[in-house]
Amino acid sequence: MQRITSKENKLIKKISKFNTKKYRDLQDEFIVEGIKMVKEAILENAKIKNIVISEDFNSDISNLENYDLAMVPQKIFSLISNVSTPQGILAVAEKQTKNKINFDDDIVLVLDDVQDPGNVGTILRIADSIGLKQIIVSNKTADCYNPKVIRSTMGAIFRVQIIESEDLKQTLEELKSHDFKTVVTTPSTQKNIYDINYIKKAIIVGNEANGVSQDIMDISDEKVKIPMPGKAESLNVSVATGIVLYEYVRQKR
Amino acid sequence: MQRITSKENKLIKKISKFNTKKYRDLQDEFIVEGIKMVKEAILENAKIKNIVISEDFNSDISNLENYDLAMVPQKIFSLISNVSTPQGILAVAEKQTKNKINFDDDIVLVLDDVQDPGNVGTILRIADSIGLKQIIVSNKTADCYNPKVIRSTMGAIFRVQIIESEDLKQTLEELKSHDFKTVVTTPSTQKNIYDINYIKKAIIVGNEANGVSQDIMDISDEKVKIPMPGKAESLNVSVATGIVLYEYVRQKR
Repeated sequence: MQRITSKENKLIKKISKFNTKKYRDLQDEFIVEGIKMVKEAILENAKIKNIVISEDFNSDISNLENYDLAMVPQKIFSLISNVSTPQGILAVAEKQTKNKINFDDDIVLVLDDVQDPGNVGTILRIADSIGLKQIIVSNKTADCYNPKVIRSTMGAIFRVQIIESEDLKQTLEELKSHDFKTVVTTPSTQKNIYDINYIKKAIIVGNEANGVSQDIMDISDEKVKIPMPGKAESLNVSVATGIVLYEYVRQKR
Repeated sequence: MQRITSKENKLIKKISKFNTKKYRDLQDEFIVEGIKMVKEAILENAKIKNIVISEDFNSDISNLENYDLAMVPQKIFSLISNVSTPQGILAVAEKQTKNKINFDDDIVLVLDDVQDPGNVGTILRIADSIGLKQIIVSNKTADCYNPKVIRSTMGAIFRVQIIESEDLKQTLEELKSHDFKTVVTTPSTQKNIYDINYIKKAIIVGNEANGVSQDIMDISDEKVKIPMPGKAESLNVSVATGIVLYEYVRQKR
């Protein structure tokens, strides 16, 4: 185990830079923080480059010595931590972003410019809970490797492959050519989510304020809405995603 | 319209105190911030005590002059605002907390110590979306009049009555005596949410970390789980609430 005492240390300086998407993309790595999340990373065999612990860290995580481990004073840990009350452990992990879609699944979930990191993380957690192994995200969707997203995934980030689409329209055309129908969730339709089946469907959920973008709407095969008997016009996008995906689970039982 | 120039002004000092639950309880009032939320408050005939706008506020909200309106310099508005980029408008509104449960509904939603304000707000929004007019919250649930809750309700706070229960066990007994069955959502059961009906049911959702408390679990008539085919063991509580409540909507169609 390495002992680091200066904030000018190379590793500390490197870790400090991970707050920007640009640097995460450049390195193809991201930060995993907290006991539960580092445990998940180990359990799921994520490629861990470094683990950094604070001097006062004393939880029981076994086999930490198998990793490139560094210990830093509490003060330095606070500097590199992304949370207000740090648990004293973080790791640098390799991204597992893929470019190729697996076309064998019943359903493929597609995020069209979902902007809130908390929503993106919660949606990854939902996808993981129903056993999806991949998710397609438009390039304006919040970066899945943003520390806030990582936190709210509760470990799903290590199990669900992120497929970043540079051109969502083209990606959807590719799905169509592999026998998928594209389904857009939007309030402006008469068809309910309960009235369609979910076999070979690409389900597209949209931006918090504006919904699914018009050009994606234009090429969609089906539009469905969640019927809301009350007065609210919309639901939080992660809640809506949960309702639609669990309708698939219900039908599949 | 009153013009306020000093932060020592009585109204400004009063508004600054609304960050604590204690003061909100004492006054039986709360703060509504932002254009959309103040519009909702007006639309839903919330009892508005004061409206405060910043000097640079220039959105088109009609009939503001019908209210006790005050204008303050931008600097003072930032002091009383609860958000990082204020829209320059907030209102002091009267709470509409009720003590009496309406026993005529099919379902009653009960929150047992849901702690995150964002989750509580999102759940209120879901309740509103299916037309529920009331929600029962335990006294350890995040205060529904917390500014963060208000924001995430998207207006639902003006349509859904908050019933604060001092003794949740007793409240559930009361529901039972009015022919309700109590249904707890928990992963530790075999019965699925799809296998029960939702007529005369009190649906109880629990704390983010610990779920529904044991003493509530002990007196529940039914336990149901959301079947998760994937690896994640749990869902965000607001997502889970959405899935259960929309199963009720689906059955009711």
